[in-house]
Amino acid sequence: VHCIGILGGMGPAATIDFMSKLLALTPASCDQDHLPIILASLPQIPDRSAAILGIGEDPLPILEFGVKLLNRVGVDLIVIPCATSHHWHQELSAISQAPIMHIANAILDKVPSNGRLLILATRGTLASGFFQRTLSNHEIDFEIPCPESDQSSIDECIRLTKAGQYELASRYLDPVLKNATARGITSVIMGCTEIPIAAAHITATGLNLIDCTLELARHTVDHALKRGWNKL
Amino acid sequence: VHCIGILGGMGPAATIDFMSKLLALTPASCDQDHLPIILASLPQIPDRSAAILGIGEDPLPILEFGVKLLNRVGVDLIVIPCATSHHWHQELSAISQAPIMHIANAILDKVPSNGRLLILATRGTLASGFFQRTLSNHEIDFEIPCPESDQSSIDECIRLTKAGQYELASRYLDPVLKNATARGITSVIMGCTEIPIAAAHITATGLNLIDCTLELARHTVDHALKRGWNKL
Repeated sequence: VHCIGILGGMGPAATIDFMSKLLALTPASCDQDHLPIILASLPQIPDRSAAILGIGEDPLPILEFGVKLLNRVGVDLIVIPCATSHHWHQELSAISQAPIMHIANAILDKVPSNGRLLILATRGTLASGFFQRTLSNHEIDFEIPCPESDQSSIDECIRLTKAGQYELASRYLDPVLKNATARGITSVIMGCTEIPIAAAHITATGLNLIDCTLELARHTVDHALKRGWNKL
Repeated sequence: VHCIGILGGMGPAATIDFMSKLLALTPASCDQDHLPIILASLPQIPDRSAAILGIGEDPLPILEFGVKLLNRVGVDLIVIPCATSHHWHQELSAISQAPIMHIANAILDKVPSNGRLLILATRGTLASGFFQRTLSNHEIDFEIPCPESDQSSIDECIRLTKAGQYELASRYLDPVLKNATARGITSVIMGCTEIPIAAAHITATGLNLIDCTLELARHTVDHALKRGWNKL
């Protein structure tokens, strides 16, 4: 059996959103057409963003525990529906026999060649800089939230989503998107897997919203179907 | 780490529905409040209902594979968000160190002491008889779909849900519920984890609908929180 390994629980709602998107992207008329998955959902992994900012416990030991567990049961690919965790992508790949897909690579083919691009993410992800490095390597210009109050709104949107208050979370995301539109932004990378959950509660923005969860799911399904992992 | 093991993929949408219900039932204000889960989602497990009816491949070997995998990674409880699979509950429990919760026990405390009760399930589940035996052991009267055309509608509802056509599936469930109401039924056990997904697309029925997925989730969360499995 070849199967997809998901290291999840960061947060658990984002993991479920990711699995729903995997399901919807898989052409299937019965159970057996779908892709086998082993999920390790470990919500006790310490806050990734706080750790990158130097104000929280190191999550790497439990992230490594999860990657080892998935390898032990023989998964063939690992995906992590939590953007901030990709700060440790290199360390985790070094101990994993199964390749670990990188979420920053997954969004690349959705970035348009023109217009102005904004990255929304946790403070940890922005401090880590992996989205910025990936975009720069492909000579793509980008901006990050400005003014500072916009980043605070994103922090609150993510926190509320993790607390299960999706509609309220969306009310913090909405003004950030309006500010972005007002200053000429045309595309937005929703670079944290909580943001698309909140965004689902906002009506048409006129922006090209790039959903990192959806794009990670799309690349995962492509990888697995191409290799026939739904055939026993 | 103590954690919940889910043997899923039967179907994958029902597994996601179960996980969404686990999430919603867990009081949490941040990721770390949630419960750790290892999921083996194995949609290639052969059709359970067909096997019970003697017209399909035996799913027991892959069900056993899943149970062994979950035991190997050290889960402390196994739940299976697929009612029909509980036909093999005894065989699976015999090879599992972790206890396997029984979905028929999970619905018991939601069955009212008066009125008339209908069980909706796959033909395999009804032929297996585990819901009927559990109810009879508690001296609870029940009925099964009648006329035969109602069971055919339930079959179609389940098949369409597995094919991702939830709204269309609900149109096969709706007349069965209307017929039940017309003949004096007051409570319905939705005894197949696909049925609640279709039922979510039906407006108020006036019936007391007992959702086996939700009740399995409720018992799972109670079991895990009582034992502090969300504390590292």
